[in-house]
Amino acid sequence: MTERIQIVENILSANDRLARENIELLNSFKVFSINIMASPGAGKTTFILKTLEAMQGRLRMGVIEGDLASTIDTDKAIAAGLPAVQINTGGECHLDANMVKDALASMPLKEMDLLIIENVGNLVCPVNFKIGSHLNILIASIPEGDDKPYKYPGSYRGMDALIISKIDLLPYVPFNMNYFTKGVEILNPGLATFPVSAKTGEGMAAWSNWLVQKVNQWKS
Amino acid sequence: MTERIQIVENILSANDRLARENIELLNSFKVFSINIMASPGAGKTTFILKTLEAMQGRLRMGVIEGDLASTIDTDKAIAAGLPAVQINTGGECHLDANMVKDALASMPLKEMDLLIIENVGNLVCPVNFKIGSHLNILIASIPEGDDKPYKYPGSYRGMDALIISKIDLLPYVPFNMNYFTKGVEILNPGLATFPVSAKTGEGMAAWSNWLVQKVNQWKS
Repeated sequence: MTERIQIVENILSANDRLARENIELLNSFKVFSINIMASPGAGKTTFILKTLEAMQGRLRMGVIEGDLASTIDTDKAIAAGLPAVQINTGGECHLDANMVKDALASMPLKEMDLLIIENVGNLVCPVNFKIGSHLNILIASIPEGDDKPYKYPGSYRGMDALIISKIDLLPYVPFNMNYFTKGVEILNPGLATFPVSAKTGEGMAAWSNWLVQKVNQWKS
Repeated sequence: MTERIQIVENILSANDRLARENIELLNSFKVFSINIMASPGAGKTTFILKTLEAMQGRLRMGVIEGDLASTIDTDKAIAAGLPAVQINTGGECHLDANMVKDALASMPLKEMDLLIIENVGNLVCPVNFKIGSHLNILIASIPEGDDKPYKYPGSYRGMDALIISKIDLLPYVPFNMNYFTKGVEILNPGLATFPVSAKTGEGMAAWSNWLVQKVNQWKS
């Protein structure tokens, strides 16, 4: 058992080192990066495409898409005119720093201000693996239900912002916003939170303004 | 690296052995067990409670609830009058056979016909760990989107039935049923599929009749 724990620790510390190298590379090109995490189907890709629209040319963006299989998300990003690289993890339930390092080698970093990394759809694994990001963003979707902070506390700790997506579905599903936000507040007091609907566009301006401000603060 | 692979193989084979022991224990008590897997928030617990209702006393049921944290789901099952045991996995993204073995020791197996095991909400990890079940059931919810078979193929292979949940949300979200079922058919041809709505009750009779028949076939 000690041997097993030791090996897991070695893997994590090798990953942390590569994640630091990724950050240094991004810093050298003045590219700000965000790591977007969520359950499968919380609306990560649609949210990223709507963020691009909401940016309206204020920042030059690129996208790394993480999935077990398929190029569905990258195809959408490329169709929207973004530089995009797909990572297929095979069986792995998260991106790691080495996968992102390889993807960065294919990105036009010189022509970018913001890199959005869409992690594998999973509420457990991604939080344990740093990949080289300046901010960690969690998306929680309304139809997933209001009990997720209580069931997946690890996903809420250590986040820099929370997106509550698909708020247009609030009339059709049981979701107690007070119960949800109470759970979030216990785990991550004062967390910047943005309720949005990619469908109606509600909330996208507040989120994109906040993000642009974060990037500009970091650059200055 | 070889050492790491060897250790992972040892863990999996020890788990398989325990899973076989769980099945043998269940068989000795004539308890049929199903392992329910899905993304976070696909509606597993509500579906289980509605299954209980749809059974209308035809089978005596018990529930094991798997979550990283909290007893929310077990509280609901107990409130519905079911024998229920909660497993909190801490950081683990799946149940394993040893956790289920411990939980079985607290279940009134003599007074049960059907054990429903609700796995941790995750589309990646649970499929790799046998726990001791006669059938594997996947729940895919409409608001997660129609591309999930293409992105999480491993979750669709090896399943014995597919529940498509929250079909009452179809009018409000983009979901191409042909595209979805085409993906499922490639991965798992002829998979028994039950579209349901826990909200309206639609589809619950077809599912529960199928399940009762499976249990009765197995018992005879």
